[in-house]
Amino acid sequence: MKRTILSFLMIFIGSGFAASDEGMWTFDNLPVKALQERYSFTASAEWLDHARLSSVRFNDGGSGAFVSPDGLVLTNHHVALGQLQKVSTAERDFVKDGFYARKAQEELKCPDLELNVLQSSEEVTARVLAKIDPKASEKERNEARKAEMARIEKESTDATGLRSDVVELYQGGEYWLYRYKKFKDIRLVMAPEAQAAFYGGDPDNFTFPRYDLDFAFFRVYEDGKALKPAHWLRWSKAGAGDGELVFVTGHPGSTDRLKTGRQLRFERELRQPLRLKMLGRRRAAYYAYSARGVEQTRRAKDRIFSVENSIKAISGEAAALKTPELRGGKEQDEAAFRALVAKDPKLASAYGDSWDKLAKATDAVETRYKQLFYRQRMFGSKLADFAGMIVRLTAEVEKPNEKRYEEFRDSALDSLKFRLFSPAPVYADMEEALLADILGEALEELGPADPHVKAALGGGEPKAVAAGLIGATKLTDAAERKRLVEGGAKAVEASTDPLIVWARALDPHYRELRDWYEGSIQPIEVFEGNKIAKARFAVYGKSVYPDATFTLRLSYGKVAGYDQGTNRIPYKTAFGGLYARASEFDGKPPFDLPARVSKARSKVDLDAPLNLVTTNDIIGGNSGSPVINRDGEYVGLIFDGNIQGLVGRYGYAEDQARAVAVHSAGILEALKSIYGMDAIVAELTKTKS
Amino acid sequence: MKRTILSFLMIFIGSGFAASDEGMWTFDNLPVKALQERYSFTASAEWLDHARLSSVRFNDGGSGAFVSPDGLVLTNHHVALGQLQKVSTAERDFVKDGFYARKAQEELKCPDLELNVLQSSEEVTARVLAKIDPKASEKERNEARKAEMARIEKESTDATGLRSDVVELYQGGEYWLYRYKKFKDIRLVMAPEAQAAFYGGDPDNFTFPRYDLDFAFFRVYEDGKALKPAHWLRWSKAGAGDGELVFVTGHPGSTDRLKTGRQLRFERELRQPLRLKMLGRRRAAYYAYSARGVEQTRRAKDRIFSVENSIKAISGEAAALKTPELRGGKEQDEAAFRALVAKDPKLASAYGDSWDKLAKATDAVETRYKQLFYRQRMFGSKLADFAGMIVRLTAEVEKPNEKRYEEFRDSALDSLKFRLFSPAPVYADMEEALLADILGEALEELGPADPHVKAALGGGEPKAVAAGLIGATKLTDAAERKRLVEGGAKAVEASTDPLIVWARALDPHYRELRDWYEGSIQPIEVFEGNKIAKARFAVYGKSVYPDATFTLRLSYGKVAGYDQGTNRIPYKTAFGGLYARASEFDGKPPFDLPARVSKARSKVDLDAPLNLVTTNDIIGGNSGSPVINRDGEYVGLIFDGNIQGLVGRYGYAEDQARAVAVHSAGILEALKSIYGMDAIVAELTKTKS
Repeated sequence: MKRTILSFLMIFIGSGFAASDEGMWTFDNLPVKALQERYSFTASAEWLDHARLSSVRFNDGGSGAFVSPDGLVLTNHHVALGQLQKVSTAERDFVKDGFYARKAQEELKCPDLELNVLQSSEEVTARVLAKIDPKASEKERNEARKAEMARIEKESTDATGLRSDVVELYQGGEYWLYRYKKFKDIRLVMAPEAQAAFYGGDPDNFTFPRYDLDFAFFRVYEDGKALKPAHWLRWSKAGAGDGELVFVTGHPGSTDRLKTGRQLRFERELRQPLRLKMLGRRRAAYYAYSARGVEQTRRAKDRIFSVENSIKAISGEAAALKTPELRGGKEQDEAAFRALVAKDPKLASAYGDSWDKLAKATDAVETRYKQLFYRQRMFGSKLADFAGMIVRLTAEVEKPNEKRYEEFRDSALDSLKFRLFSPAPVYADMEEALLADILGEALEELGPADPHVKAALGGGEPKAVAAGLIGATKLTDAAERKRLVEGGAKAVEASTDPLIVWARALDPHYRELRDWYEGSIQPIEVFEGNKIAKARFAVYGKSVYPDATFTLRLSYGKVAGYDQGTNRIPYKTAFGGLYARASEFDGKPPFDLPARVSKARSKVDLDAPLNLVTTNDIIGGNSGSPVINRDGEYVGLIFDGNIQGLVGRYGYAEDQARAVAVHSAGILEALKSIYGMDAIVAELTKTKS
Repeated sequence: MKRTILSFLMIFIGSGFAASDEGMWTFDNLPVKALQERYSFTASAEWLDHARLSSVRFNDGGSGAFVSPDGLVLTNHHVALGQLQKVSTAERDFVKDGFYARKAQEELKCPDLELNVLQSSEEVTARVLAKIDPKASEKERNEARKAEMARIEKESTDATGLRSDVVELYQGGEYWLYRYKKFKDIRLVMAPEAQAAFYGGDPDNFTFPRYDLDFAFFRVYEDGKALKPAHWLRWSKAGAGDGELVFVTGHPGSTDRLKTGRQLRFERELRQPLRLKMLGRRRAAYYAYSARGVEQTRRAKDRIFSVENSIKAISGEAAALKTPELRGGKEQDEAAFRALVAKDPKLASAYGDSWDKLAKATDAVETRYKQLFYRQRMFGSKLADFAGMIVRLTAEVEKPNEKRYEEFRDSALDSLKFRLFSPAPVYADMEEALLADILGEALEELGPADPHVKAALGGGEPKAVAAGLIGATKLTDAAERKRLVEGGAKAVEASTDPLIVWARALDPHYRELRDWYEGSIQPIEVFEGNKIAKARFAVYGKSVYPDATFTLRLSYGKVAGYDQGTNRIPYKTAFGGLYARASEFDGKPPFDLPARVSKARSKVDLDAPLNLVTTNDIIGGNSGSPVINRDGEYVGLIFDGNIQGLVGRYGYAEDQARAVAVHSAGILEALKSIYGMDAIVAELTKTKS
């Protein structure tokens, strides 16, 4: 559901961006001319296939790449963090201490990690559009559109066995079928200590200069054996130099670069403040929980990282959206665009009123947005999410595939159940604390008379209700979740598990709201947004890239420092800088060094590069992306952007915005001189498979 | 003359600043209560005498301190830079290579360096005011005021032999007689390479984190022997820790915190843009001159530093003055202040119209400001300055002491002649390039019809005129300058030296303008400014500090890092950070390491602190100031402020503004491990004299 709520504003208009290093390009439509003019580079079909088939999507949100002929996959520590947390216990804390498998037998299977590799993609625009009767109502057309997408996905899955997703690009200007090979036997190979990976903590997050060993190695297994991938990226020991052309492949999550002025106002005035308020509240809840003890601190570690990361990112985006430059620029662009449409009688009659119709849809969303926001998400409580999902999943699968909510289509069920039946631990005490906060929030924000709140609390106090629900539920056990799902609607109806009973009571309110949105708002957003996209193509031409959709993209750019306010920022950092920063803060957290790192100081080459910055256009979801040089070699590992780059949700700013990566030579140096992981070093650097 | 032009806006209104670490306090009026409340510290009379008598003023603009019982004085490399440049030649470049006297005989006498130590100060307000007849015209009152100041200075000099200056504080709210012991036999002991002192160059100037060894040692001699100062600061090997209370003594040059809104508008709209335009032009002239060769690059080195430093400082001040925060704050403060004055009938009738009168004076200044700006300064040409000074000096000394321009009063002549007769080299080719630029600038800015321009060019082209003047003048020879000054007005009248002839032709235009300013503008500024100061005392009380006047002040604060935009800035840097920064820029200038520093890497303690930041309230003129702990020990050497601190001209900003200092432990580490200056280390750290 989170994706639905998130995506209902991720749409619309086309684009007419200028040159620069801007763009998150699909592999079928690269900016060939710009690449040639700026960097004298043209990607061959082989180069592109190699980059694509070496790229890996982490289905729980992130990117990565194959880096050895034996299925080794490299991503960020913070992408691996969820799995590290799930395999850790009070006794063995892999988050704190790191994880080091020195032989195959020590590699540790992840409970619920699914990796995807894009095998093929084909355009299906004509097939989808053919099913839409132009004379039907908007609601009917929207249903026809979704039904056809479901059919295409199912046909493909049945025929190929591959995960098959129909993706809307260019605000529905194009529909594409993406087919992924799925891997679910993923084993942890090596991860450094969280403090080495996230050195500098929240204060240094989204900044540069940076000194983070934010990497982790997994290995993909198939049929119990290490996978021999057809493509993997050869390691560059030297890495990239200042000014060098580099590429990033990966799966940027979402951007909002093509929103209308009215939609940006909604973001600025309503959605972002609510998100920040919610996250601030949840952060406080996690801190309060952590304060109970060492083990609670351990349990909440990845949650706190995630919440603080989101707060810093959204704060940066919100600030960017308030700058006169961005507001003014967006307003001018839209005014100029609309004026050009208005001038041409044909365009004007086809598309001229789409902005006003969309604005009315946004007006309508605003009337119920607080409900949408607080009723539909249980952010922080796994069990509440599970319960809602079980109730809806079992009801939805009774319907024909084309009529279901999109997350319950046949093509999506396998991955969904993989997550739902995960054996990863669920901590009841943390669940209770979080659910109490969620319930208290709903009560405060929506008021006691709200039907959802009434159903959720039944007149009780949030803390007591949460304690009652979590104390008695069996859903902490994956087997019980599986039993219910496999028993279907009947088993769920018959269940007396208090959390299932509670989720059943909430379900009608959820459905009423979602059906209202999908029936009366979404069609306008889809079809009017699509018209604006067409108008943009007509006015500005078609050499543009679509907004990000967590699908594979290629961005290009160069390694480059920058001037930040008063300071000259280098294009890279060195290990010497890591030790210096620890000295400069007297080793006080979050600037303390883990023991292994501290001890290795005399062995480490202090001049070895550690992190670097590039102008590549990236956003959340690119975490773990490989940085690739023109020879298709691995030169870096994207792990962050700087704060100046947070404007990236709305546009690209080459001047100061930077992608932040771990330098390939830095990873080698750490493996060798700090962690003694010689086997990985050998695997990365052997010259031929 | 430069000081007169600079100072004609450095005046007026009183102040009502709040607590915080704000203030450049005179020693007679410390914020005793704030110090006690914020830091539980009360300075004893002994503590204050010790701090004052250990503090040294560099008369060419800067501060310093005695740091050994044998007259060793420590200041910044960039304060020493002028002297280093003057004693360097093409064959021995002490700027580039540093200077290292390992025994007394190797210490090198500076050509024209004068140091002052404040021996005593006494208030003479009553005596000055007694001479001002309230019924006389403003012009007469101004002349009476100046004449009495001259008389007090002369009496004191005659009686004590000390340099005696009457200083106006609080915009004439108080007059003080300051008596200094002068030292003119100052010998260079040690200075590192310019690249070590000014590591990071212009990009890193006014920033932090910083990695500069910006220090230099001199020794004061008296009667051919090393001075045994009564007071000197004992060295703290450990230095100051995070959050520790620290003091800075020194000679802040000027602040404009008490200007009226109208005066700030003049600064913002007229004066600062002209200064930046002039400096940008001059920077280009120096670069063009440097491009002629290695020796020219060496000769212009300190000038380029100075011009670039000024451009960065003034740009920062100009930007601060344009921020809505500062403008709004200043406007609100003034409106509130004037409303309080207007409400009280007595205050209103005494002071109520002073703002309007001052505004009219500013209006009047603006009508001739371009002339004041371009006619009265020969910024960049030493010889043109010398010529003007000789012509005026010989004329002025014919007048009674009290009637002269202030810089030619008897009390000032000794120091003035010391500079004028300096044996330091004058480079004719550089002089010619600079004078050509100055003449071209005057022609462009004032037009060919301006009487000054006519007199300066006589219809010729700037380059040709400059070549003719500099090619034939004998003023490059200090003996000739001395001959003229000792020959008096008669010798100057008789001189056929082309530069003297030229200066004689310009003199009437200079005098007309200065006399206009001092006759009709300055009196209003002085007396109305003084009224506003009195009004401020009446409304807000008197626990304030005066604007800076290049006289001894004490500031207090604490060692503290800060958050800058997106980055957490530590309170100190370490040597490891210096080496890391060089690595991170691949050793490219201005981030290259001098050979000695580079070679010492394995010997240097990388954790040793290098630079640190404090909240002390400082400004230009504090360069070289000691940072002193509560035990009166030397813990650091002020060498810069950050850009956020440039607002300091107009107000104090504790949030981000920082003073930047070399850490005392860092100086020791460099002396020991990089420069092998063991004798200085021993001298600094011996426990008892």
